[in-house]
Formats: sequence, C-alpha cells, structure tokens
Amino acid sequence: MAATKVSPLAPERFPEMPVVYGVRLATRACGLRYVGRDDVLFVEMDEGTTVAGVFTRSTTAAPPVDWCRNALAGGQGRALVVNAGNANAFTGEEGLRTVERSVRAAAELLDCRPSRVFVASTGVIGERLDDTKITGALSAMKNDLAPGNWEAAARAIGTTDTFPKGATRSVTLGGVEVTVAGIAKGSGMIAPNMATMLAFVFTDAAVPAPILQAVLEDANEHSFNRTTVDGDTSTSDTLLLFATGRAGNIPLIGPDDPDFDVFRAAVREVCLDLAHQVVRDGEGASKFVTITVTGAEDSGAAKRIGLAVADSPLVKTAIAGEDANWGRIVMAVGKSGEEASREDMAIRIGGHAVAEQGSAVPGYDEGPIAAHMRGAEIDIAIDVGVGDGEATVWTCDLTHGYIDINADYRT
Amino acid sequence: MAATKVSPLAPERFPEMPVVYGVRLATRACGLRYVGRDDVLFVEMDEGTTVAGVFTRSTTAAPPVDWCRNALAGGQGRALVVNAGNANAFTGEEGLRTVERSVRAAAELLDCRPSRVFVASTGVIGERLDDTKITGALSAMKNDLAPGNWEAAARAIGTTDTFPKGATRSVTLGGVEVTVAGIAKGSGMIAPNMATMLAFVFTDAAVPAPILQAVLEDANEHSFNRTTVDGDTSTSDTLLLFATGRAGNIPLIGPDDPDFDVFRAAVREVCLDLAHQVVRDGEGASKFVTITVTGAEDSGAAKRIGLAVADSPLVKTAIAGEDANWGRIVMAVGKSGEEASREDMAIRIGGHAVAEQGSAVPGYDEGPIAAHMRGAEIDIAIDVGVGDGEATVWTCDLTHGYIDINADYRT
Repeated sequence: MAATKVSPLAPERFPEMPVVYGVRLATRACGLRYVGRDDVLFVEMDEGTTVAGVFTRSTTAAPPVDWCRNALAGGQGRALVVNAGNANAFTGEEGLRTVERSVRAAAELLDCRPSRVFVASTGVIGERLDDTKITGALSAMKNDLAPGNWEAAARAIGTTDTFPKGATRSVTLGGVEVTVAGIAKGSGMIAPNMATMLAFVFTDAAVPAPILQAVLEDANEHSFNRTTVDGDTSTSDTLLLFATGRAGNIPLIGPDDPDFDVFRAAVREVCLDLAHQVVRDGEGASKFVTITVTGAEDSGAAKRIGLAVADSPLVKTAIAGEDANWGRIVMAVGKSGEEASREDMAIRIGGHAVAEQGSAVPGYDEGPIAAHMRGAEIDIAIDVGVGDGEATVWTCDLTHGYIDINADYRT
Repeated sequence: MAATKVSPLAPERFPEMPVVYGVRLATRACGLRYVGRDDVLFVEMDEGTTVAGVFTRSTTAAPPVDWCRNALAGGQGRALVVNAGNANAFTGEEGLRTVERSVRAAAELLDCRPSRVFVASTGVIGERLDDTKITGALSAMKNDLAPGNWEAAARAIGTTDTFPKGATRSVTLGGVEVTVAGIAKGSGMIAPNMATMLAFVFTDAAVPAPILQAVLEDANEHSFNRTTVDGDTSTSDTLLLFATGRAGNIPLIGPDDPDFDVFRAAVREVCLDLAHQVVRDGEGASKFVTITVTGAEDSGAAKRIGLAVADSPLVKTAIAGEDANWGRIVMAVGKSGEEASREDMAIRIGGHAVAEQGSAVPGYDEGPIAAHMRGAEIDIAIDVGVGDGEATVWTCDLTHGYIDINADYRT
C-alpha cells in the first residue's frame, strides 16, 4: 500500500483471522510498480474447491475479468493470482495473452487445468503488465504457501488503501463448524454496479458451485452494492468466493436446506464487514456515513434514493464541512427520480428530527445536531413517505484529501 | 454574488446586450440573505408576450417551479420575479403561499392575471422565505423598470456565481431583425435532467407559445442538458423564454416556416453560450473541458457516454492535476453502460492520439499532451467504435476550490 496516512476511520487493528482449511497463501514483492512492498498474491486451494464470482458491469472490463467470467463456468478453483499496481486493463490483445501466460504458469505449477486458475489485477489502467515478473516469482511463492497469511495477503493487493482489510465469521452447519474469511482492497473508484473493488472470500464449508453463486450474489447485493465512495466503477471489480469443503459438513443442498440461511448470513456479514472497511478507507474520508431510507415505494427505490444521497458531491462536501445542510439531502432525494412525498418527507440527523411533513421542524435545537456532525460516524435517516420500502447504504464524505490523492495518482 | 475570486475561466467582460423591445427590468437589494447587493429581479413584459419553460425533473421541486409549471398552461407572460439567497424549497404549504403572495403583488401592480406572473427562487433549501421583503419592494422597483438593465439583472440572480452571465444573438425573420437575449445563474448543483440552473431568455420576435415551447426544448437539449458541473440536480432549475412580438415580424407558423430554423438556431446559440458560462463558473473550476464522443450506437448513447466521463470524479480530479490519465476515461466509458468496443476504442487528448484499437498508442509523445493539459481549455475526443452516434458535452475539473466552496456554504 502507498505510504499515506492511515484513514482516521480505520479499525484499530487487522482482525484475528483463522485458518481456513484447504487454503494456503503467499505474497511477494515483484516490483510491478511499488517499491519495497509485496505486490503479488498467490493462493492455492485444495482440489475439489468450488467457486463463485461477481464482476464489474463495466463495458470496458479488463482481460482478467473476462478470464474469470469464462473460468467460472467450470465451477472449480485451484488457484488465485492477484497483482497490485497495474490493472492490465485496456491493454488490448496483449493484455489477454498476459493473463493467459500467468494462468498457464500457475496451472503448470499446481498441475491443474488453466480454467481452475483465477486472476485479478488492480492499479493503473492502460499500461502493459510485465507478466514475466509474476510468472518468474510463482515457483518461489509456491514454496512459501501457508495457511493464515491473511494480513500479508490483504496488504499485497492494496493500491491507494491506507490499511489492510480482513473479516471473518464462523458458523455451524449440521453440527460442523465452518469458517468464512475474506480480504479486500479498494478505496476509490468504488460504486455500485457490483463488486466495486477486489474482494476474495474463502470458506472451508462444502457448498456446490450453483448454491455458492446464489449466496455470493445475495451477499454482494447486501454489501458492496450498497456502498459508494465516488460513484466511479472500476474496469476490474472482482468478488470471488471459494469453498474448499474441508470442514467436512454435509454439502448444502439448496435454499431449502435448514443451514442455507445460516451460511448465507455468514457470507453476508463478511462481505458487509469488508464493504464497510472499503468505505472507511474511502480516499480522503474523514467521516463514515450511514444513510437509512424508509417509506419508499419498494426496497429497490429505497436503495436508489440512498445511493443518490450517498453519491451527491454537495451532500458529501457538506458532511466534510460538518454542516447539517439537510436541504441538499432533499435535493439529492429529488434527483434520484424515485417517488417521494414533499408533504410527508422527514429527515433525522444523528437521531434528531430536522424536517417533518415537508418542511423544517420549527425551532429545532441545532446544538446536538452540530455535535453529531462533528463526530466521525454520521447517521442520516430519510423517510420519503410513500410506501414500505427500506434500505441502508454507506458512504464517506468528500474532502480535500480525495482531491490530493486523485489529482496526482499516476504522476 | 458572493465576494469570491472571479473564475479564471470567465469571459473578459459581460457582453454588450441590446434592448429587447417590450422587456423592462429592475433590480433591488431586499436583504433576503446577502448584504450590500441586489438580490431581487423584477421584469415586466408587454401584453401579448408568449412564454415557454422547462424545469427541473427533481421529484422534490420547489413551490416556485410548481407555480411556473401551472402558469405555463396559459402561454402568456407579463412579469417575472426572481430572488437569490433563498430557494423557497422544501418549505411546505407555507412555501406555496409565499409564492402566491409574491405573484399577487406583482399581478396587482401590473394589473394582470396572476397566471401571467412567473417566479423563481435560488439559494438555500429548507428555510422560510420572507416574502414581505419582496412584495414590499415591488412597487418601488416598478418605477425603476427600464430596458437594458441586463448586467444588473444577471448579478441580482447570482448565488455562488463569480461573474454575471449574459448572451445575445440577432437574426432576421422575414426581413425583420429580431433579438434574443438571456441571462443565467448557476455554478454548482449543475447537471442534466433539464435546465440545471436559472436562465431567462427574452426575444422581441413574435412566436406563438406552442412553437416557442418546441424551440426552447430543443435549445435546452442541445445546451444545458449537455453540461455538468457536479452531477447534482437542483430543486429549482428553471429555464424560461419570453417572446414579446414587438419586433414586428410575421409570427412564426411552425417547423415548416422557412424562418423556424433561423430562430431556433439563435435560441440554441444563446442557451449554449449561457450553458458554457455556467460551466466556466463551475465551483472551483480551473479548466473548461469539451468532451466529444463519436462512434456510439446513437446520439443518445453518445451523450450518456460523454456525461459519464464528464461526471466522473476520478476523471475530473485527474484533469485538475493536469494528468492525461486516459485510463480513467476508459473506466468512465465503461461505467456508462453504453455499448463500446474495447478493440476499436480510440482516445485523443488535445488532438493527440493516446489510445487506438483498444490499447495505448505505442511510444506516443507525452510532451504535447502534457502541454495541452496545462492549458485552461481541455479537449477530449473519444471514439467508441460501434456506430455513428455523436455528441459533445461540456464540464469543468474538480478542484480543492469545489470543496472549499461547498464545505461551508450554509454556515
């Protein structure tokens, strides 16, 4: 990760992460862009590991995304190779061959089919990726593979991130304890339309690929797709979930399985934890903002209203300025295009009502609201007064730090 | 207008503006929010003046917008009352009564129907507007009404604007010279979904209301709807066009009239000139950016791609940093959701090819591109390689100045 100041919203420390049976990780400094830090992650998973994935909806997706989309059809994963510093995006035919060479090298080392090797690249767009730096390192990295290298792995995949991101949950399926553990990177170019960054989640539960895919899509919808930093969508966003089956539970059989909801909740929680950490590392972020929308036509409308507020530069700069400028919230609700009642709309900031029935609460006390705005955790609740739809979304403020980071990232 | 530094992108001076026969203007300092400057504009138009309008698509539109939408049905305009500093938005039932009282006062002064009085308010959202400050001043303002007070009018309607905005064109309809002249305000909360600020255009041409409406909608689509500062949409956006008929031309009879295209072009040009000035006054703007998209599926797709690039915080901060980071342009094209060919896409910056056939132009000379990025007028051309659709959109960069202005606007 770049040597910038750690986000003031960062967790105190990287979490204690358990071993996920059947998963081994190694990292290495391959000098792709960064100096003096690991920038490649190599993960080996036991044979029989199933895989699920969701990817950027960008129409200019990078070659590694194309590769993973195709590989996903096989439903099995044996390896993951990730590099930071170069996104291998918009690199033409040569970019695809770069992927193929990396995949082939990993497949040969592990003696598996190329379609069981997954890849992801993050960093600058439009520059050629020198894959020999990766392929030349994989053999040595294979010797370093070990369970539990989570923090090093999370650090190796970071770009403008200021802290490594990890999350884990354990649950019991049919009397057997299974673990879900994941890492993520991302701090700008974060917006819905899917995964919105790189995140890799691993479990030792036994879950057939189609069920795993359903669980992951649900988790993504309830986590990464409800967070936004700047509304921009990367060409490389990738969320993968691997299930080794090594915990020894009876494989989940589908949505009717009594354990399905238990497992789904665990994956949701890991993804939401990671998604929140990505927002907390939003470029230049000084405040973590939770926006709860109620009273919308349906939950989809509530989510779109929430994201319109969360993505509004005027709302985000007001929050940066610790200004409870709820007029801008009204503006952002209006631009969402979703139905909202001007007569019944109500807004609460930090739990304090500022607007009700379509206008300012007469003589409301600005004191506690101003105090709330000075804090690092901002809560905005909006009831739009037309139905029962609800959704919560998360974002950060827009500060000078965002400009600093992004006005000279490449140079 | 606020006492901030004039935008470096401002025109050298307010244009020479002609008299538009049948239009008289007056301004006054009514102390609604600002101190020591005019903040109310009163315009009287001759009887028989036709009117057209387009308004914000916000679902939380302000009461003045509601009023104008209804009044537009009558097709005639005798007066316009505009105030700056308070948007009279999200002010509930009381906000609507505020409008009604202002309208009634103007209608009584001019002895006309209330439905011929148009109103607009701009400024802070959610605060009660003290209409007595306006109604109490109208009578004195009536005595000040005079043709040609354009610059004072443009200044009176400004909020965070750093310079007054005016534009004019003259054309000949059936041998008679007619004039089109307009003023505008707006520097933030500017985005498509219609007028995106306040703009008032006046002509002495004779044009029936339905034809005037068609001309205005066309002009809006080719000007304000193709510019963006921050993607935010105001609750108050209003674009009105009044035609007094005092030039004495034979009234336009419709799209088949040989003079229709001439008049339409003049209104388009005035609107585009005003729209460009609004972008040039974008909050904190240091660069005026023209984005031309070709090769899209159709012109609508081209416009949406252009606006996705124009609204991308990552593209806008890169431009602020004078960084020709075309990878972010690729990202933004991808997030538009419109069809684009990764194999055939090409990007030119300042006329210099940086990417062709889906990857970087090998060994392109960064020198002239870097020189172009240091200038104040940035040209980006994108060919997405799938069809014949074309569109041009305009925006500005995203700088520390935007944060400065918006993090403490209300306090």
